[in-house]
This record gives sequence, structure tokens and C-alpha cells, in this order.
Amino acid sequence: RSHQRSVAMLDVPFPPFCAFLGSLGLLCVALVGAWCQHWRGGFSLDGGSRTFNWHPVLMVTGLVVLYGAAALVYRIPNTWSGPKLPWKLLHGGLALGAFVLTVLGLAAVFCFHNSNGTPNMYSLHSWMGLGTVLLFSCQWAAGFGAFLLPWAPTWLRQLYKPIHVFFGSTILMLSVASCVSGINEKLFFSLKNGTTQYKLLPTEAVFANTLGILILLFGVLVVGALARPSWKRPDSDSLDSRQVPGTR
Amino acid sequence: RSHQRSVAMLDVPFPPFCAFLGSLGLLCVALVGAWCQHWRGGFSLDGGSRTFNWHPVLMVTGLVVLYGAAALVYRIPNTWSGPKLPWKLLHGGLALGAFVLTVLGLAAVFCFHNSNGTPNMYSLHSWMGLGTVLLFSCQWAAGFGAFLLPWAPTWLRQLYKPIHVFFGSTILMLSVASCVSGINEKLFFSLKNGTTQYKLLPTEAVFANTLGILILLFGVLVVGALARPSWKRPDSDSLDSRQVPGTR
Repeated sequence: RSHQRSVAMLDVPFPPFCAFLGSLGLLCVALVGAWCQHWRGGFSLDGGSRTFNWHPVLMVTGLVVLYGAAALVYRIPNTWSGPKLPWKLLHGGLALGAFVLTVLGLAAVFCFHNSNGTPNMYSLHSWMGLGTVLLFSCQWAAGFGAFLLPWAPTWLRQLYKPIHVFFGSTILMLSVASCVSGINEKLFFSLKNGTTQYKLLPTEAVFANTLGILILLFGVLVVGALARPSWKRPDSDSLDSRQVPGTR
Repeated sequence: RSHQRSVAMLDVPFPPFCAFLGSLGLLCVALVGAWCQHWRGGFSLDGGSRTFNWHPVLMVTGLVVLYGAAALVYRIPNTWSGPKLPWKLLHGGLALGAFVLTVLGLAAVFCFHNSNGTPNMYSLHSWMGLGTVLLFSCQWAAGFGAFLLPWAPTWLRQLYKPIHVFFGSTILMLSVASCVSGINEKLFFSLKNGTTQYKLLPTEAVFANTLGILILLFGVLVVGALARPSWKRPDSDSLDSRQVPGTR
């Protein structure tokens, strides 16, 4: 009987997990803000490196944490019964908020590069990051068209839903990979002189490396939560399992 | 009726997908080898930068491509019936091969750093990468102990299986994120003088950025294939759904 208790212990309910995940997300936002404020000179809109500092803060806040919150809306058991429209609006609204912050985050780095004569879009980080944002824009537009426009036909919704779910997790993985490569790149740029070299692992490097690991942890936990069968909306589960032979 | 045909078109069978994925994986290995051979001076064991070049090749080959192959073994329909032991040995053997290449890949970078007086383990790339390899070693050892040792109790196998599956995908995502940040970092290191600067996007940068995007695509497709319900072993599906109340 003891092993049945062990199995039950693994079956964490969603709400406390979600509270932990929310705290972890807020911690990531606080740490990226503290990094830019304390070590990178803070924030401004003058086109200099303090304008660049908006880039990591807006990307972590929008493309990772708020995006993760949007993705998890349908894992809240309250969303499983009653009218669906308010939850759809919450999901789409959070994703739209995440998208707006993301676009502002892109604007910050393009503005910084243009003011300083640095070329845009040359690094693998930039290719991956912009690709992720473009996928996110397609995801939002297609989700709006298929799930929020009242005249979208049911067969289209059923056809598109697994694609939307797949890209939902994929875009988050790509966001997290983009953030990590961006933090790594920024530390090599910023820490290259005298006693503050990255390879001497100053406090800033330990701080920002830890931020990167926490962002990875957040991303892995959100993708894991999305994949967990017992946290999925029951009716959507049965739809999924009926999808191959049925008329969907 | 046309939408039913559209749904059926989305339902790609596993074998052609797997052939595509295998080609993509081989392409990644070929490209990372070509990058190191053509632009980075090739390979040697002298402790210099040509020793370092084994690091990207072994990591992409072991921790991404061979690891991905090991992860997908149970998606081959032939594994769903008949004796399980040969497939377990194939899965564990491929994973062990991936692990050996990974450890050799770590040895290459540590040897290069030590020969040149460069500190080890300071960048976010190194923290994430070593964390991924440590997780992989735990995953292999725990998988061996729970699934290959004949005296492992059934309840332990059933308790551990969803954890092994979760970390299987997670480790691959972390590997891919590590590769991408490593390629980005290597390009900043290598392309910093004269007309070959990374920001001027020379041919090498386009080539290696493209390699990074293809590695991301490979990782996303493997994780997506692992998550796809209709490609999972049918009895394992029903086991999963029975796992909480049953004795497994």
C-alpha cells in the first residue's frame, strides 16, 4: 500500500503548483529588473545602453512570464465548466499583453542598435528571437481568427486546436532558449575589461547566470504543466482522444 | 467532407516523419562538422582550438541527435508488440552512446580550457550545459536501475515511468538551448577582428546561425513527436490513464 501513497504524493494539485510558478515568474521579472538597474545603469529612452536595458526586462516579462500565464489559463479547474467566452478573452488578453510587451522589447533593441550604428539581426540569438516573435504573432492571429471570431466553423476550430496547443509550448521553449542565449551574449559584451571579466565570474555574472537558470526552470515547469494529462480540461481530453476516427 | 480529408492529412504516419527527422539530424551533424573543419581549422588532440572543435561536434551528435534517436525508439510501431527487452536494450544502448559522446565532448572543452589557462564553468552556457549532462546521467542511471535490472519492483517502474518520460523531453530541450547559446557564444569569440566580425554577418555566421536554427527545429520536432498521443505505444497510453488508482 505504501507505493500507492507514493504515487498519490506525485499527484500535486494544480493550484499550489500554480502559486509556486507565479512566484518563480515574479522572481524572474524582479531579478532581470535588478540586474539592469544595479549593474547595467538603469533605464531611459535616450537610445543608449539604458534604452537597451528595457529589452531583457520586457522580453522576460512578456515573452516568458506573461506568456506562460496565458498558456496556463485552461489548466485552472474553474475554466472547465460554465461559459467559455470569459476564459477565452482572458487567455487571448494575457497573450495580447505578452505580445505588446514583446514588441516594445524588440523596439528597445532596434532603437539602441540604430542609435549606435550597430547592425540588426546578425546573431543567432536575434534570428531565433525574431523567429519566436513571428511565430507568436501568427499564433495569436490564428487563435483569434479560429477561436474568438464567432463565425469560425467548428471543424476549423477542431482542426486547428492541436496545432495551436503544439505551437503554444513550442513558442515558450523557443522564448526561453532565446532569453538564455541573450543573457549569455550580454554578459560577454558587458564583462570584458579589467577585473570584471565574465570568465572571472564576478557577482554580476553569478546573479545573471542564476537568472538564466531560473528562467529555464520556469519554462520547463510551464511546458511540463501543459503536457500533464491530469491537469487538462477533461472534455478537451476526450475530444483529443476522439479526434482521429471521429468527425471532430 | 473536405475538412475530414484535411484532418486526415495532418495525421502523418510515424515512419516517413522519422525518416525526415533522421535526415535532419544527419544534416545537423554534417553541418557542425563542416563548420569546424572549414572555418575553425579542423580537429586535433593537442589541447588547442582544434581540440575545442570536438566539443560542438560531439555535443550535437551525442546530446542532440543520438539522444533524440534514443528518445524516439518507443514510437516505432514494431516496439509495441512482442518481447520488450530488445527494445529496452536499444533505447538504453543508444542513450549510453549519446552519453559517452557527451562526456567526450565535455572532456574536449575542459582540456582546451586547461591547456590555455582559461577558467572553466563561468558562462551561463556552461552552467546550463553541465546541468543538462548531470540530469542526463541521473536519467540514464535511474532508467537502468528501474527498467533494466530484472529485480526492480513493478510499482517502482510504474511510479518512475512518467518522471523518466518528463525528463526525457526536458533534457532534450535543455540540450538544444545549450547548443544554441554555445554556437552564439563561439561566433562572438571567433568573429571579432577586421572584416570577419560577427555583426557584419560573414558566410561563416550565416552558416552557423542556420545550423543553430536547424538544431532548434530538430529538437522541437522530437519533443513534438514524443508528445503526440497517436504515436505513443497504445498499452502504455492505457497504463498511463490507469496509473493513479491501479496497482500498476
